[in-house]
Amino acid sequence: MYGELSKGELSALKEKLSKEYEALKSKGLKLDMSRGKPSSEQLDLSNAMMKIDLGDYKTDVGFDCRNYGALDGINETKRFLMPLLGVEEECVFIGGNSSLQLMYDAIARAMLFGTPNAAPWGKNGSPVKFLCPSPGYDRHFTMLEAFGIEMITVPMLESGPDMDMVEKLAAEDKNIKGIFCVPMYSNPCGITYSDETVRRFAALKTAAFDFRIFWDNAYCVHHLTDAPEKLLNIYDECVKHGNENKVYIFVSTSKITFAGGGISAIGSSPENTELARKQLALQTIGFDRINQLRHARFFKDLDGLNQHMEKHRAIVEPKFNVVFEALEREILPVKLGEWHKPRGGYFVSFNGLKGTAKRVVELCKQAGVVLTGAGATFPYGADPLDRNIRIAPTFPPESELVSAMEVFCAAVKLASAEVLSA
Amino acid sequence: MYGELSKGELSALKEKLSKEYEALKSKGLKLDMSRGKPSSEQLDLSNAMMKIDLGDYKTDVGFDCRNYGALDGINETKRFLMPLLGVEEECVFIGGNSSLQLMYDAIARAMLFGTPNAAPWGKNGSPVKFLCPSPGYDRHFTMLEAFGIEMITVPMLESGPDMDMVEKLAAEDKNIKGIFCVPMYSNPCGITYSDETVRRFAALKTAAFDFRIFWDNAYCVHHLTDAPEKLLNIYDECVKHGNENKVYIFVSTSKITFAGGGISAIGSSPENTELARKQLALQTIGFDRINQLRHARFFKDLDGLNQHMEKHRAIVEPKFNVVFEALEREILPVKLGEWHKPRGGYFVSFNGLKGTAKRVVELCKQAGVVLTGAGATFPYGADPLDRNIRIAPTFPPESELVSAMEVFCAAVKLASAEVLSA
Repeated sequence: MYGELSKGELSALKEKLSKEYEALKSKGLKLDMSRGKPSSEQLDLSNAMMKIDLGDYKTDVGFDCRNYGALDGINETKRFLMPLLGVEEECVFIGGNSSLQLMYDAIARAMLFGTPNAAPWGKNGSPVKFLCPSPGYDRHFTMLEAFGIEMITVPMLESGPDMDMVEKLAAEDKNIKGIFCVPMYSNPCGITYSDETVRRFAALKTAAFDFRIFWDNAYCVHHLTDAPEKLLNIYDECVKHGNENKVYIFVSTSKITFAGGGISAIGSSPENTELARKQLALQTIGFDRINQLRHARFFKDLDGLNQHMEKHRAIVEPKFNVVFEALEREILPVKLGEWHKPRGGYFVSFNGLKGTAKRVVELCKQAGVVLTGAGATFPYGADPLDRNIRIAPTFPPESELVSAMEVFCAAVKLASAEVLSA
Repeated sequence: MYGELSKGELSALKEKLSKEYEALKSKGLKLDMSRGKPSSEQLDLSNAMMKIDLGDYKTDVGFDCRNYGALDGINETKRFLMPLLGVEEECVFIGGNSSLQLMYDAIARAMLFGTPNAAPWGKNGSPVKFLCPSPGYDRHFTMLEAFGIEMITVPMLESGPDMDMVEKLAAEDKNIKGIFCVPMYSNPCGITYSDETVRRFAALKTAAFDFRIFWDNAYCVHHLTDAPEKLLNIYDECVKHGNENKVYIFVSTSKITFAGGGISAIGSSPENTELARKQLALQTIGFDRINQLRHARFFKDLDGLNQHMEKHRAIVEPKFNVVFEALEREILPVKLGEWHKPRGGYFVSFNGLKGTAKRVVELCKQAGVVLTGAGATFPYGADPLDRNIRIAPTFPPESELVSAMEVFCAAVKLASAEVLSA
């Protein structure tokens, strides 16, 4: 254990690790593990979707997808997305290729116009606040920051967000208007919320009448094992408590078909959906119906989708294994970090020794391996312990990933030795 | 002339017209001229775009359109859209399938975050106001109304908006933050702004530092004659006056390829574009890049686009002629209305006698012909003279259009006789 070494031993170790790191650095790598991007191989899986003959471009009820109409999406595609969202067909609203934009727009509309029977958040008087389970998705946080929404960090446990804290804060502060969640194979922790967590969310008593749970179910079908985790249907649970207006559920096919040309959707209560329809009728002529039809016809149903996701798994799982193997071989024996082995999703969340994350990312960068910025997984980009790093293994080819993880592990060791000998 | 008839003659005429109208009504028509929708035949023109082989989905500089990246659009498509927008490549921002949404979003961002070096419109203290050349596009008005922006009607002349009024109001009221224009084959008037009008817009002195001209150039290539009208490049003119931040130019392919699956774009100054890029980076992962590539590859360049538009013209021009012929045969001799014969675009703007528009729309509806609601072409849906009706001839087949115009003319005559005898 590094922590048990004498000052002299540590100094010698640091020198040795520095040499190992420099040797890797001299290779002049140029690798990118910064974002959760699908690889070319994964994208190839959906090329066939672009070749489907869409016939006369009419839906099964005769709507011409090439023309105006169907503001909230075409029925065939709503039915296809229903099981992912867990709401009824009439409560599905299909968006463009970015679910992030649907989330942004839901906040923007709440700020400007308010949610059903509530004043606009922008007229709240005091600044609006959101709860932010962390480590979390950096783009949720940068979005909230842009809106001037105050972010309150809530720790992530193995069961999901710390619900004691969520319940306490939401109940006592009426300026807390929402929470961002990635409930399945979470970004970056890879955790699926427990049934109890989902039930507590659904039963949440909030001081703000217009509190909203942003349920970003981005990885709902992105399994990496034979035993897929299961997420309780939050909408059904909310209904039991009369809280169905409190949740917005988001999905997208960005990591199913094409990150550059997928479709997204929001599922919510009849009342939320009705208001969204009214508000969106004023802002758009609707989203791309042809791409909606293409997606529905390509997959046909949930079975078709699941078969497609098995092909993704075949490409992605070995890459996750490269990460696990490197960490287990290099980091586990010397106890310089912890990580959860996710059974799905796009990330491995690595927690190193306190005060090492920024240095590790910097060392990796100097050696040609780009990681997500340290701190990005926390509100305001500030990781209080400077220890969390998000590893995104999907994009690089396996051989590059092996090299990248070599650099990563060497950087973790060197940064740890530096911190311990400081 | 109806106006010259005696009371008795008018009464007899009304009875005769009423019988004619009832005869048409009894046919049980079901025709829709309410929106500027392309017909199936027009949509068919772009079916070939869906069959193009996009190869490896990479742009000419090797960007994979299937993946994340290219927030503001791919270069090939920016180059293709440049001549429509009249700005440099780096000042093109490509959106999704709805330019209306780009306009909405530009206003929403101005309200929430402000334009370069300016405070958010939402923090203006007094309500923000917009100038609204009218008759105009109803969706511009309903959008402004949704934002709580006060609308000030500016009359449309044969040269475009009444620039004396625009200049006077913009110069004296700092709460007037913008104006909505459809500068070419305008909706619904079919007027192309004169060079002088464009120059006066470009030189506009405004009390509000952050005044914006929303230049919705929706019909820039939608010619219907051999002598296409020409619109002066407003951006170049603005540059001459240091006013380049004052204009947002919008185009879309909704009425070029598919209303349900086109692309849209905004062109503006480097400073506006830079801020939009920063703000949009927080709200989306970018728009559909595959559809962008598809459009660029299908048309190749402006020549390709113009050839395509000739095919639209071949379908649309005869429909406009049906409208003109009916009006010239039925309405011109009895002087019950006026209209401009547009040389492009999607609409014929009809001005009947004062106080007849609502009644004409109602009579048409009862006879199975749906028109755009009377008043829709004015802010707050209120036509002060109740005389303007927007005729949208593109969607119905020619034979149906003939029947619809029969009903329309019969309704105009009956409503006029009613008003004159009241």
